[in-house]
Amino acid sequence: MENEETKTVPKSWAMVGGDGPRSYAQNSSYQRGVLDVVNELMNEGIKETLDFKSPCFDSSNVCTFRIADFGCSAGPNTFLAMEKIIEAVEQKYHAQFQNSPPLELQVFFNDVTTNDFNTLFRTLPFYQKYFAAGVPGTFYGRLFPKSTLHLAYSSYSLHWLSKVPEEVVDKKSPAWNKGSIQCCGTAKEVAKAYSAQFKTDMDNFLNARAQEIIGGGLMVIIILGLPDEIFLSQTAAGICNELFGSCLIDMAKLGVISEEKVDSFNLPLYYSSAKELEEIIKNNGHFCIERLNMMNHPMTKRKLDVQFAISQFRAIFQGLLEEHFGRDDVDKIFEYFAKKFAENYDSVFNGATHQHVDHFILLKRNIN
Amino acid sequence: MENEETKTVPKSWAMVGGDGPRSYAQNSSYQRGVLDVVNELMNEGIKETLDFKSPCFDSSNVCTFRIADFGCSAGPNTFLAMEKIIEAVEQKYHAQFQNSPPLELQVFFNDVTTNDFNTLFRTLPFYQKYFAAGVPGTFYGRLFPKSTLHLAYSSYSLHWLSKVPEEVVDKKSPAWNKGSIQCCGTAKEVAKAYSAQFKTDMDNFLNARAQEIIGGGLMVIIILGLPDEIFLSQTAAGICNELFGSCLIDMAKLGVISEEKVDSFNLPLYYSSAKELEEIIKNNGHFCIERLNMMNHPMTKRKLDVQFAISQFRAIFQGLLEEHFGRDDVDKIFEYFAKKFAENYDSVFNGATHQHVDHFILLKRNIN
Repeated sequence: MENEETKTVPKSWAMVGGDGPRSYAQNSSYQRGVLDVVNELMNEGIKETLDFKSPCFDSSNVCTFRIADFGCSAGPNTFLAMEKIIEAVEQKYHAQFQNSPPLELQVFFNDVTTNDFNTLFRTLPFYQKYFAAGVPGTFYGRLFPKSTLHLAYSSYSLHWLSKVPEEVVDKKSPAWNKGSIQCCGTAKEVAKAYSAQFKTDMDNFLNARAQEIIGGGLMVIIILGLPDEIFLSQTAAGICNELFGSCLIDMAKLGVISEEKVDSFNLPLYYSSAKELEEIIKNNGHFCIERLNMMNHPMTKRKLDVQFAISQFRAIFQGLLEEHFGRDDVDKIFEYFAKKFAENYDSVFNGATHQHVDHFILLKRNIN
Repeated sequence: MENEETKTVPKSWAMVGGDGPRSYAQNSSYQRGVLDVVNELMNEGIKETLDFKSPCFDSSNVCTFRIADFGCSAGPNTFLAMEKIIEAVEQKYHAQFQNSPPLELQVFFNDVTTNDFNTLFRTLPFYQKYFAAGVPGTFYGRLFPKSTLHLAYSSYSLHWLSKVPEEVVDKKSPAWNKGSIQCCGTAKEVAKAYSAQFKTDMDNFLNARAQEIIGGGLMVIIILGLPDEIFLSQTAAGICNELFGSCLIDMAKLGVISEEKVDSFNLPLYYSSAKELEEIIKNNGHFCIERLNMMNHPMTKRKLDVQFAISQFRAIFQGLLEEHFGRDDVDKIFEYFAKKFAENYDSVFNGATHQHVDHFILLKRNIN
């Protein structure tokens, strides 16, 4: 059990907890928006690929069907996703075994140890159809005993790297990302370092899940990404992050925050292409790709309201920024960002020549 | 799944969260004290009664050994208990299967939904030998799928009733407990109402666990109790609670809190006798009693320091009192109690003619 590793993911990776106006719970409608879009893909994919008569789903396993959400945050999106998954699983089960007793379902909600599990538990649906459990720890290591999960799900989580690649904040490295806070794509050495970190992380994730998911079990992954050959800097998301980075530089010049701190700050995020994902999964070798779809998120097609965009940004990055810059400076940073964002509103959206995408991936664990 | 019921246990049943000076985590040394005493009983009991070669422990089950702590609070006692249980389980496993691969262990930490799981998760031992999960909800209903647990544990939790028996706060009932806040034992109708509630609750607990624990699986219960035929009012614990009740009455007379509120306040606690426990378990019929020992807690033998006693009392009852009397009044109540306790220190301890006990119970799930 790689519990040592569990402790190495910084606490700041957790989304803003609670259910107040700044919480992730109140600011995750982007992530929820895509649920409607993926719902059909997931429903169809589960029904077509899940096979209760597969050799590993023996009678004792079928009694209890175990689902895990890796990177669930504090809700409520995870509850909606679990509901949809269960609907599809039950339909398939009853189609394969007409007169069987109902399945017992156990759902494990996983996120980093510092996630707000208290809010998650207190907002569990009143009538849930499953036995609920929370599992703390990074999903880049083992979290469950061998062969105990039937279906894994991970939505908007795997683009979070386990760490910022060391080279990009190392002044002596050719991959030093001076003047930027992200992998915008144009700086080759930076892109290489980010891509290598993503590959390592995804491989660790797949290896851990391969141990935990029974043969024939499924995994649904929804992950932020890019069309092949497109740079993040060509998308509104990338331009928006870049604008945020420029705010940090402005504030360093104004003497509000230290230049040192700005230079050492990078987002631990990676937008992958379908080509990259396919290669990583195939090289890993434990899972078969049943579906790999690119979706254009409905929200990326329209211009976002300034306040809405800032709130979403803050719910996601506040913890990360507080840890790096300190709590007091984060308020100032967001104030400044809101102003600059409003001023540059048109250029953010008009400057984008492409849209980022959401990848929908359905994997099946190979039967050894 | 009785999830509706899950919501009916008041949030105040949870111990004081966090790890500050008033937290249960910092004020549960009484509960920890007995761990040293029961450790030997548990170790010996598990080794003698756990049988990995029993028909229900088939090969697939043995791969993963699942343990659940019902009423774990926010730690740290639960971690010490799990460590000791795992030690005994592993020793027995290796004694029965010399050259087998190591067991994979999954530990489920259960408590009411409002328990402070965030603190529990953040204080998990760095090198735990198990996969950890938190399970929110009352243990008087189902919490796990059928036949998925191998060992259940519950320490200092089952003397907490699911609710105060309605009759004891009903002015029209012969069981109205006017002038007292507990089942002191001398008022027959009150004792009958409390005892009936305890019986119902224990039966619900045993029925739920009977579904969840595999045949041959074990259950360790540590519960506050009394020697047969002894009343709570004859013990220091009972006298101390009574003194606390008298503080409430004093404060109602002083006009600080309402008499109505004092009259409607009773502790949802029941101290059972070995005779009662044995009868309930035998009538329930799902478990066989392997051990039923009465232990005198080392701490009941000596006089407690006033501040220590008040802190322990507060860590346990603060939530309950805040819900009933409101947060502001609780500070006043404890201030008054500390003063009166110090004044009556000798009479509390000298007035006790008997000691309450801790029951240690080891049950084995019948093989159907």
